[in-house]
Amino acid sequence: VQLPQTSLRTAQRLQLGGKTRRLQINPIIKAYEVTLEQPTLNDARADLERVSAALEASQGLGKLSTETAVVRSLSDLARESQWRLTVFVRTGEREREIVGFAGTGRRPLGVAFDLGTTKIAGYLLDLETGEELASAGIVNPQISFGEDVISRIVYAARDAKAAQQLADAVRTGIDESIGALVQKAGVTREQIADACVVGNTAMTHLLLQLPVAQLAIAPFIAATSSAVDVKARDLGLRIAPGAHVHIVPSIGGFVGADHVAMVMGSDLDRLSYVALGVDIGTNTEIGLHRPGQPFVTSVSCASGPAFEGAHMRSGMRAASGAIEAVRITREGIQVKTVEDAPAVGVCGSGIIDAVAEMYRADTIDRRGHIREGAPWVRRGDQGNEIVLVPRQSSGTGEDIVITQHDVSELQLAKSAIATGLEILVESTQIALTDVHEIIVAGAFGSYIDIRNAVYIGLLPNIARAKYSQIGNAAGIGAKMALLSYKERARARKLALRSSYLELTTYPGFNRRFALSTMLPQKGHELDIHDSEPRRAANMVGSKEAK
Amino acid sequence: VQLPQTSLRTAQRLQLGGKTRRLQINPIIKAYEVTLEQPTLNDARADLERVSAALEASQGLGKLSTETAVVRSLSDLARESQWRLTVFVRTGEREREIVGFAGTGRRPLGVAFDLGTTKIAGYLLDLETGEELASAGIVNPQISFGEDVISRIVYAARDAKAAQQLADAVRTGIDESIGALVQKAGVTREQIADACVVGNTAMTHLLLQLPVAQLAIAPFIAATSSAVDVKARDLGLRIAPGAHVHIVPSIGGFVGADHVAMVMGSDLDRLSYVALGVDIGTNTEIGLHRPGQPFVTSVSCASGPAFEGAHMRSGMRAASGAIEAVRITREGIQVKTVEDAPAVGVCGSGIIDAVAEMYRADTIDRRGHIREGAPWVRRGDQGNEIVLVPRQSSGTGEDIVITQHDVSELQLAKSAIATGLEILVESTQIALTDVHEIIVAGAFGSYIDIRNAVYIGLLPNIARAKYSQIGNAAGIGAKMALLSYKERARARKLALRSSYLELTTYPGFNRRFALSTMLPQKGHELDIHDSEPRRAANMVGSKEAK
Repeated sequence: VQLPQTSLRTAQRLQLGGKTRRLQINPIIKAYEVTLEQPTLNDARADLERVSAALEASQGLGKLSTETAVVRSLSDLARESQWRLTVFVRTGEREREIVGFAGTGRRPLGVAFDLGTTKIAGYLLDLETGEELASAGIVNPQISFGEDVISRIVYAARDAKAAQQLADAVRTGIDESIGALVQKAGVTREQIADACVVGNTAMTHLLLQLPVAQLAIAPFIAATSSAVDVKARDLGLRIAPGAHVHIVPSIGGFVGADHVAMVMGSDLDRLSYVALGVDIGTNTEIGLHRPGQPFVTSVSCASGPAFEGAHMRSGMRAASGAIEAVRITREGIQVKTVEDAPAVGVCGSGIIDAVAEMYRADTIDRRGHIREGAPWVRRGDQGNEIVLVPRQSSGTGEDIVITQHDVSELQLAKSAIATGLEILVESTQIALTDVHEIIVAGAFGSYIDIRNAVYIGLLPNIARAKYSQIGNAAGIGAKMALLSYKERARARKLALRSSYLELTTYPGFNRRFALSTMLPQKGHELDIHDSEPRRAANMVGSKEAK
Repeated sequence: VQLPQTSLRTAQRLQLGGKTRRLQINPIIKAYEVTLEQPTLNDARADLERVSAALEASQGLGKLSTETAVVRSLSDLARESQWRLTVFVRTGEREREIVGFAGTGRRPLGVAFDLGTTKIAGYLLDLETGEELASAGIVNPQISFGEDVISRIVYAARDAKAAQQLADAVRTGIDESIGALVQKAGVTREQIADACVVGNTAMTHLLLQLPVAQLAIAPFIAATSSAVDVKARDLGLRIAPGAHVHIVPSIGGFVGADHVAMVMGSDLDRLSYVALGVDIGTNTEIGLHRPGQPFVTSVSCASGPAFEGAHMRSGMRAASGAIEAVRITREGIQVKTVEDAPAVGVCGSGIIDAVAEMYRADTIDRRGHIREGAPWVRRGDQGNEIVLVPRQSSGTGEDIVITQHDVSELQLAKSAIATGLEILVESTQIALTDVHEIIVAGAFGSYIDIRNAVYIGLLPNIARAKYSQIGNAAGIGAKMALLSYKERARARKLALRSSYLELTTYPGFNRRFALSTMLPQKGHELDIHDSEPRRAANMVGSKEAK
């Protein structure tokens, strides 16, 4: 497939959660077409030396290094292609390096990956135009070794073989994803001359097969937090033989490369006002930016897997049939499910909605206690519970419920985030009222109802208009780092200058965490009328329960 | 084992074929002992960043790169060794790199290998003192895939699997040799922070798994002739995880890294007079040096496997029982065997001696014809032959003979070398009488009787005193490149500035080659009385044959 030869190195539009922004494309890879002199008995120069001579003569490129793995592919290709080649050259900080050879007319491509604990998002881009040629999402194959970060660390720390298994799992997943991307775009693997990966610290460590045991016990130390450039072939990725995989640096502790990428993808570090970036997950990272300071101060909150539906009686991930929104009125409980399929469980955003609506309807009190005798409340085997969808209407034949235990789990999760955010803001001598924007990033963050998240105290009580939900900013950050070495330098500076605030040693943390499990006092919500629950219009009517 | 902490970076004596010379030691690797700050919850810097900080603070070393494979070994070692470490740092042309970590007190070591078609010689050295801690010689395990270079190229060119087999064979051999070296010296593999390999072009290509098909057909083009730095782990060598293997560059065609190393090891490029360096083998490389020119002009002569005893009726390699020297007198034939064992065959130096003595005794004429009726000559199944050792005295129960075919094979081999040397000298407008020294290098070259080699016209007829036999100069060159980055730079310049003269396209080559198969006219030998056959004193008496 011949791609359009648009050599525009100017600013390129990138779609970013509704906003469109421009990115200067400065790829680290360039493609050169060369014609080599054919060897004779009296010109017995080696094949590689012919390439060097041609690049020197036509492009003025001197002193190129080339790894053996790359040289390996040259001799046959040169002869098959009648001594005309495309040479992919990487301009590193200290040297130029030939990373691959291909036939003539092959454009230089790259892949970016956002390596999540649960999902891996992959993107195939043209390195010169920035055009996205394909994207693909897969489940992280490591999931069969443990759903959460800690169980995978425990598994990997068993022995070298276990660590190898986990590394192989994610590497194979990424390589298969690359296979899907090249097939979609109709291109070849050897055209992919560069790659970029972001992920949380545990995920990047497991990918690189770095030791993780020390990451799981206090004081939670990474093996390295620097940017890593590793050869793609060392990770089993079958792209150009000399291609690198660039891993974006991390800030420290659990504040990883994905957080740095989120900051870049949301431009948080460049805003002209005080702003927060929040990426909610099993660990929730929050970055605080102040104007004039091109970096952030970050905390990591151990919010746990509640938002992924784990440890909840009817909890599940946001798959088909998951209740993602809930409304409780005097008439009954309305739910909205993913793909409008029959309800089979409740995912994170549904749990937030359910608890908010239960609190609004006085079904639970500030401590989260489900009140005996409130509408739709019944006595379960482990205390009171509310039935969202009775078995007659569910897709499973079971009641879909929120139990007292579920509410408590959510309170712990929301308190972890709220306490972290509060301490972060307070530690930098800033008042919440000075915060001009709270950017809620990540796939999960895009689905939650901000009004309800504020109502239960998960997010702070500031004007609804100050919130923005921007989607997978970490994925955007990964693409930016792929397309521009200047963005890599930005990430490096960002990681170096940003600071990490350890919450657990902050004075009074435990007390404040305990207090914050309480739901907020009612009647103080700002902008309470600025938006109706967004998805109410789509809600399907539900039956009365019990 | 604690090695003496002699930090002498001054000139070091290296034993070199009887001569002792001094080498400035400038290792590319340095060892630093560091004490890391222990992590706490409020100092959550990653392990690697602690190492960087310690090296910066104690040594002023900034901006170090570290590969993932090296980082992998850090976290556990740092904790086991109470945060005290030895760090091996490689200072490359463009950057500093951490190549390995070890416990405290570990000295930095290196290995050098001379990778021959038949034998692999390995040396373990202290990189700071230059001291040789151990040496080991093994048979190249590739030999099971073919005895000579061409048959291995043909095998490797079949498919990728075959090339992998050949690469694996030699890599395993080298790695096992490293195992033997560390055991002899009582050191550990992770202390070996650098390695250097020399070999002919085919051997280094097969080691690196570079394509070789184009190397076997005209115009005989190498994939690369540059110096190669490849990670030891990529060759399956289990030394320090970030250690490099440096492959010395080659000049072109079949004039490989071993020739460059021979030039360095013999100091040929630095002599103040016209000199030749000759390394006799299946291919014989000859380098010509002129004063004031710090490089050589080289030819490669297709001398064939005659000197390894191949294609000879009673031929064999120089193993126990091989006849290595022959003397023919009126009384009978005297032979000297390797290890004085019962004779089982004839090796290269024995064949040279036998033919020279047969010519001296008029048993053969100038054309190499074995004369009917000459003493000890009999009629064999393929023409006349001479019996060196009759079956009654041999270790095999078979007659050990030199056939007419064997003599012809030797004539072809000696003509290839003589013609190459003659054309080389002539092409540079130099008279043979201007040649001040002929250095005969290599293990084989050390064993031949120069007088007899001159007598049959293998080597030119110049004064015996101008010849020197210096042993494995290529191995010395490999050690020099291991111990000093200045010697690597010297090799690079040498390879770049030296030129390769293709013999087969030289005007009149074929005619001259054919003429040179003749043995020299008698009575013109210089210094014919300057030395008796060196090993006559050790010769065991032999019986009369037939």
